[in-house]
Amino acid sequence: MQVSQDLTRVAAVAAAIRQRIAGRTLAPGARIPSVRGFAAAMGVSKSTVVEAYDRLVAEGAIVSRPGSGFYVAGAARPLTLAAIGPRLDRAVDPLWVSRQTLEAGAGVLKPGCGWLPPAWLPDEALRRALRGLARGEAADLLDYDEPLGHAPLRGLLARRLHDQGIPAGPDRIVLTASATQALDLIARLLLEPGDTVLVDDPCYFNFRALLQAHRAKVVGVPWTPAGPDLDAFAASLRAHGPRFYLTNSALQNPTGATMSAATAHRVLRLAEAHDALIVEDALFDDLEPDPSPRLAALDGLDRVIHIGSFSKTLSAAVRCGHVALRAEWVDRLVDLKLATSFGSGRLSANLVHRFLADGSYRRYLDGLRARLADAMGLTARRLGALGLRPWLMPRGGLFLWAALPAGLDAAVVARRALAESVVLAPGNVFSLSQSAGRFLRFNVAQSADPQVFAVLERAMEGEMHATARERAPAQVRS
Amino acid sequence: MQVSQDLTRVAAVAAAIRQRIAGRTLAPGARIPSVRGFAAAMGVSKSTVVEAYDRLVAEGAIVSRPGSGFYVAGAARPLTLAAIGPRLDRAVDPLWVSRQTLEAGAGVLKPGCGWLPPAWLPDEALRRALRGLARGEAADLLDYDEPLGHAPLRGLLARRLHDQGIPAGPDRIVLTASATQALDLIARLLLEPGDTVLVDDPCYFNFRALLQAHRAKVVGVPWTPAGPDLDAFAASLRAHGPRFYLTNSALQNPTGATMSAATAHRVLRLAEAHDALIVEDALFDDLEPDPSPRLAALDGLDRVIHIGSFSKTLSAAVRCGHVALRAEWVDRLVDLKLATSFGSGRLSANLVHRFLADGSYRRYLDGLRARLADAMGLTARRLGALGLRPWLMPRGGLFLWAALPAGLDAAVVARRALAESVVLAPGNVFSLSQSAGRFLRFNVAQSADPQVFAVLERAMEGEMHATARERAPAQVRS
Repeated sequence: MQVSQDLTRVAAVAAAIRQRIAGRTLAPGARIPSVRGFAAAMGVSKSTVVEAYDRLVAEGAIVSRPGSGFYVAGAARPLTLAAIGPRLDRAVDPLWVSRQTLEAGAGVLKPGCGWLPPAWLPDEALRRALRGLARGEAADLLDYDEPLGHAPLRGLLARRLHDQGIPAGPDRIVLTASATQALDLIARLLLEPGDTVLVDDPCYFNFRALLQAHRAKVVGVPWTPAGPDLDAFAASLRAHGPRFYLTNSALQNPTGATMSAATAHRVLRLAEAHDALIVEDALFDDLEPDPSPRLAALDGLDRVIHIGSFSKTLSAAVRCGHVALRAEWVDRLVDLKLATSFGSGRLSANLVHRFLADGSYRRYLDGLRARLADAMGLTARRLGALGLRPWLMPRGGLFLWAALPAGLDAAVVARRALAESVVLAPGNVFSLSQSAGRFLRFNVAQSADPQVFAVLERAMEGEMHATARERAPAQVRS
Repeated sequence: MQVSQDLTRVAAVAAAIRQRIAGRTLAPGARIPSVRGFAAAMGVSKSTVVEAYDRLVAEGAIVSRPGSGFYVAGAARPLTLAAIGPRLDRAVDPLWVSRQTLEAGAGVLKPGCGWLPPAWLPDEALRRALRGLARGEAADLLDYDEPLGHAPLRGLLARRLHDQGIPAGPDRIVLTASATQALDLIARLLLEPGDTVLVDDPCYFNFRALLQAHRAKVVGVPWTPAGPDLDAFAASLRAHGPRFYLTNSALQNPTGATMSAATAHRVLRLAEAHDALIVEDALFDDLEPDPSPRLAALDGLDRVIHIGSFSKTLSAAVRCGHVALRAEWVDRLVDLKLATSFGSGRLSANLVHRFLADGSYRRYLDGLRARLADAMGLTARRLGALGLRPWLMPRGGLFLWAALPAGLDAAVVARRALAESVVLAPGNVFSLSQSAGRFLRFNVAQSADPQVFAVLERAMEGEMHATARERAPAQVRS
């Protein structure tokens, strides 16, 4: 297995180009060094450079202009999206997984996506809520919502949060179109361009895309099975004076790890010492087998802002999120919500309220958690048979974070799988430091079809053979 | 009527304080000059200053701290919302009307609001669409939408735009949560902090709030009955090099005026000469009795970006807007949409599509336009009887922009009416130059109740008497 244990020459050439693009030595639109010149500079054959460039083209990092050479991708776009950051490489672009999974047609398998299959969701309860709405009050169907959002839903959410030890009355809860919009409003409220935000490394890829759209400086803190690495967290607080730290404390995306109580306590102490806020995205909390310590509960919702939605457990088609925060921030957040979206949706909020109020949610969650636990075990066994190792076995939730055998690049494997209509989620889309190149995130609920693993195996084998082929002539030459 | 034709001393004192707040001579949280000191400085009685300060307190511009004096409002809020601009005065804050109308309880009349009463909206058609959805495909209820948004609705919108001469295929249309979110995404796409945007003066108040949240410099162009004042528009293009000009070309909010074909042509020529883009918010187009020239149609959707929604004619509870733009900008706009809201709502888009596809929309619009025309005539007559003069008689739509008799301040009249549970829309919330202090915007569909005019009359009389009372002692003294 020597072949797959070293960086191959092709991979080394590709990495050198990627690094220049990342460091802006090669800006978007810039011409890439010629094959001949770069082969001489790197001390490799021209065919090695050609293969590396082909790989970068396939990844979307560079484009070939026939008769002219290779160029860094991204410059043809007329308007600066510099705010979203450099498009280093479409394969590890933070939005690559979103676009691929959202655009996937009916025949495509999506173990890389971030949500449950429709068949796992409470279809009949939602239809019941829709029929109730169709017989309900006209204003709920036709009128704008109040500025904070549908009061009955805020009341119900306040009771749920209270049960979790989070002291948010209905007046401290603001409804939004989604948890993502909640985070967007928080960023508008708290950030000036150039402010620093700490995120976990790895973390949900959209955190990076969103924060970069706010022109924030995003700094990663290595994530461990018990939460953020506390030494690194403290050092980042000292070095960067971040405005806030953004995390999923329970069933973290992508790793499935949950912050321990001791770590949560230390995180709060450190944040307080450095006057940093914390934004806790509780998107997966309802999938926990038993509740872990909420940062917002430990803190009393003072330094911590708590966001969530039901898009993972009820419906992603019904857009409704929420944020709970300090009372004195509510008015400003609501002003920003009105200014930039003119309010959340009354119809969606009403549907979510009808659904949560009908009593079936708790039973449905019990069944869902059991089903996810079965799928987690099955997925881990199937991945193990292919030589992938889970980083840890999560307590629950959707995600299993697993490492490919050494020498395999998850982005390349994902590209090969995509050609066979399977969307995988390669690790580096989640990693600010680009240090998760061997990992893939598996959604266990979307991995039931054995075809997922057949395609994965072929993609891994294809990539091993490709690197072996590449290595052979290099050995002959050297 | 001498009493109401001059600026009263109270109004002059209040204006002097407002000006200092606006000019930041008095920053948020700053202490206002003492009553005694300011009376001496202004050469008026202490009671005049007391009354002026009381008025500013009622408007929300300043706050009274018992035993301590008066302070500029806004500093108690811990986090800067400087991006939203100075809160000169809660009565003319761009979001004042939104908050008042959205928060209004059941017994409150809302001639100042910007939407139709639920009873005017197509309640039964929407219930039919909901019942259809409740019997429809699971994915439409449960799954995320595709990145651009529900393809059947984009197809239908493309046909509608084509009928208006706007060449947008479905692939150039992106669905959003609202027209406001469409504008927000455009601002994210096009603006760097400090860029200039031209708006009409007066214009929809939320344009200012939204653009200021993007840290744009907002410059007003005087609006005439035929569109923007072309000399001022050209001068602003030369002086400020704006990124784009934002306008409602048809049935403008708040004036109801429509841009003439000749003006539209000149606006496009001037924008081209100065390389400015145009964002056309077509929110009220479906209320036109006959179609006026669309900027996006004249231009071929090259320099013009076209946005709209059905929140005014179908439902404000169903959040769904759209934007049509240059093909090469679509991808970046969609990336921004995913990064900041993770997609528009599939359920809402599906409802709008079912509604538009069922064929009743055109008939409903015919009836709605006739009903609005009747309400427009009735409202104009009732206002005329109270001495208010329409700026022009609009061709259609919701709004009548009418001037109070000289000497009356619309913000003060609105505050008095609010105490009697009638929400009015005072002119300066729409005016960047704060030059519409005598105007009120009336929503003719929300002005059917004679109580609106009874309360308006009392508020006007109360204000006339107050200014007369204030003036009397001044006359004695002088």
